[in-house]
Amino acid sequence: MLSNFSWPIRIYYEDTDTGGVVFYVNYIKFFERARTEWLRAANVSQYALTETHGVMFVVKSTAVDYHAPAKLDDELKLTVVVERLGRASVQFLQEAWRISEDGPKLLATGRIKVGCVDTIAFRPSIIPDEILKKIKASE
Amino acid sequence: MLSNFSWPIRIYYEDTDTGGVVFYVNYIKFFERARTEWLRAANVSQYALTETHGVMFVVKSTAVDYHAPAKLDDELKLTVVVERLGRASVQFLQEAWRISEDGPKLLATGRIKVGCVDTIAFRPSIIPDEILKKIKASE
Amino acid sequence: MLSNFSWPIRIYYEDTDTGGVVFYVNYIKFFERARTEWLRAANVSQYALTETHGVMFVVKSTAVDYHAPAKLDDELKLTVVVERLGRASVQFLQEAWRISEDGPKLLATGRIKVGCVDTIAFRPSIIPDEILKKIKASE
Amino acid sequence: MLSNFSWPIRIYYEDTDTGGVVFYVNYIKFFERARTEWLRAANVSQYALTETHGVMFVVKSTAVDYHAPAKLDDELKLTVVVERLGRASVQFLQEAWRISEDGPKLLATGRIKVGCVDTIAFRPSIIPDEILKKIKASE
Repeated sequence: MLSNFSWPIRIYYEDTDTGGVVFYVNYIKFFERARTEWLRAANVSQYALTETHGVMFVVKSTAVDYHAPAKLDDELKLTVVVERLGRASVQFLQEAWRISEDGPKLLATGRIKVGCVDTIAFRPSIIPDEILKKIKASE
Repeated sequence: MLSNFSWPIRIYYEDTDTGGVVFYVNYIKFFERARTEWLRAANVSQYALTETHGVMFVVKSTAVDYHAPAKLDDELKLTVVVERLGRASVQFLQEAWRISEDGPKLLATGRIKVGCVDTIAFRPSIIPDEILKKIKASE
Repeated sequence: MLSNFSWPIRIYYEDTDTGGVVFYVNYIKFFERARTEWLRAANVSQYALTETHGVMFVVKSTAVDYHAPAKLDDELKLTVVVERLGRASVQFLQEAWRISEDGPKLLATGRIKVGCVDTIAFRPSIIPDEILKKIKASE
Repeated sequence: MLSNFSWPIRIYYEDTDTGGVVFYVNYIKFFERARTEWLRAANVSQYALTETHGVMFVVKSTAVDYHAPAKLDDELKLTVVVERLGRASVQFLQEAWRISEDGPKLLATGRIKVGCVDTIAFRPSIIPDEILKKIKASE
């Protein structure tokens, strides 16, 4: 696995579809849960971002490759790596792994690009220095 | 079927679960879609409710009985009946029917109670007269 | 809180709606996550239920009262209590609490009735003795 | 708009998030609804694919760029174009447009690649000739 940070996710009925596997769209939710917890671990509060700095992160693009399916009750680990840190955007490389007695198996890989925007006009905005430092420190 | 108003819904992968049927929680989303379209048909805009009257409808309770499952590609009809119209709340009786060549089949019955609240403090608020008239006219 | 068993849930963007709060339907997903983890803690595997006993639990009814909203980043505790244990059904009383420095606050109460059915014809089926014992032991 | 085929979608509360806009992940659900209806219009039944041909389509990758947000009550049109038709896969170019009095506005662009697999081992499988013809005829 490519990251020191990972977030565990358990598969429930709500995550599956009639194909008997996790509905592919849901991995993008899982990626976001992991990014959110990664931000929290880096001590960055989304609430403070908005209240103190008047900015928020919005998702600009998502690109996901699906390698293998997960099923009900599976345990996943979601990883988070900052692949590119721009002045007003961050690109994440994320992976979803199934954890089992047979060892980890890569299920999906995602590249998620988020942009920093002001909360009034939703225009691109420079990532506040304090936040930038925390992101760098967490790598 | 118990109502003149019904709203068609098609079942997609996103609606199903690994049991091979529609995930039961999703019927409550379907009920809301039907109520929203019923409101629209009654010429009540949720946006106008908020902007003009400073109120919104919030769901206070949902009680749903599940009778039979729907599957991928099924066509459903969702009905809406006002069961009780209070000064600050509306109780809906709603049904989900599967439509097929074998005739309609009742899948789920829901009682959904919504309250009218002001958009500042979320306190119970009298349903504006103009809205009340439209709701009564739609019955 | 009414139960010894509780399951923590964090609120993400995916759980919220444009009203600024958790979309009410999602509490029913949260209740299921808690029941699933409660079953797991009682050492009942849904997979084994199907494979060994040829039965599964299906939700027959859900009745939920919404008391107060949760928001992004909130920490919730979901409780599970067996309110009535029948031969072929279980009724759960569940609560969603927000945990914060101000103390716990009750957000939603649910009564969820699940039925035991065979996996072939989905007919009501007696809860296997082994499972019944585990459920009783977990109370 | 780039396609003769389009599918209308209305935005409900369930589609939005606390940012006041449609949760970005949901566009990928909308894309699938449109592909499903496009298949149906081409007279291809997912059920028949499985029953008659022993194959199904699975999503291999999704790449989505988000240009502008949609809000509650917005009307969208989802388009479907076959960008590349392989022997065992199809790549779709899809767009989400908001329809309003101000004219159409492009909200999101997606490239979705689906693979044809057998329903037993989920191995890549040639798209049945009959289906291929229907897909080509629909372009």
